[in-house]
Amino acid sequence: MSDTLSKQVLEEGRTLAPRYDADGLVTCVVTDVWTGDVLMVAHMNADALQRTLETGEAWYFSRSRRALWKKGESSGHVQRVKEMRVDCDQDAIWIKVEQMGPGACHTGRRSCFYRAVPLHVPGPVILEFRDGERTFDPQAVYRKPD
Amino acid sequence: MSDTLSKQVLEEGRTLAPRYDADGLVTCVVTDVWTGDVLMVAHMNADALQRTLETGEAWYFSRSRRALWKKGESSGHVQRVKEMRVDCDQDAIWIKVEQMGPGACHTGRRSCFYRAVPLHVPGPVILEFRDGERTFDPQAVYRKPD
Repeated sequence: MSDTLSKQVLEEGRTLAPRYDADGLVTCVVTDVWTGDVLMVAHMNADALQRTLETGEAWYFSRSRRALWKKGESSGHVQRVKEMRVDCDQDAIWIKVEQMGPGACHTGRRSCFYRAVPLHVPGPVILEFRDGERTFDPQAVYRKPD
Repeated sequence: MSDTLSKQVLEEGRTLAPRYDADGLVTCVVTDVWTGDVLMVAHMNADALQRTLETGEAWYFSRSRRALWKKGESSGHVQRVKEMRVDCDQDAIWIKVEQMGPGACHTGRRSCFYRAVPLHVPGPVILEFRDGERTFDPQAVYRKPD
């Protein structure tokens, strides 16, 4: 559908016409509606997007497992979508979510972005843990990877 | 390099080892360091990442133009990187930036995410403009698309 839309309609129109990539996916950025922190980056196919729109809870498509999944289906750490946005060329989605439970990351942390990359440092880059405390025990929470 | 790293080292280590995709790219989420808003989603190849780390200003790789580009090279709307993070499995980067000039989006807006997708609405999805006011005239600013 989006292939037939002009740049003008894609960027300035009111039609949702996601530009899925060759694998049928768009990138989805997930931020915490309260703190603004980026919790995770995931992907949605058309089915995941549709289910998210219908239910108000976040569904994704796992590239590694080649499967649709509902966030929190194993852990209970569901994401309630408070707002969804689409970007100018409609190949990325931004959702602001209320993260249920202690965190979004399968490593047991609130956000997947728990390591900082220092700038302007000559030589090898050494990551710095930041907000890296575990808020839950992933082995106790997940029956399978989430 | 990252192919040789264990999941443990990738997720819990201090080594930056981006997992570039088949095109040599990682996803980069760009947020405004002051407001927390997502300004844009772009991609970095190894060269763009290196230049960003060295200069503290955002460089990306354009998939459509197949070219390295410095954000603001045409418009002057440079992004000064205040913090960079990497996610658990190192296939996504999050940078918090100070956006120079009136905006990040090539359509003339502060953020690329200027349209909301309504949830729980039966029937066709009609996008709602939100924070969609133009903050600059793209035709006056860009010598070529940025």
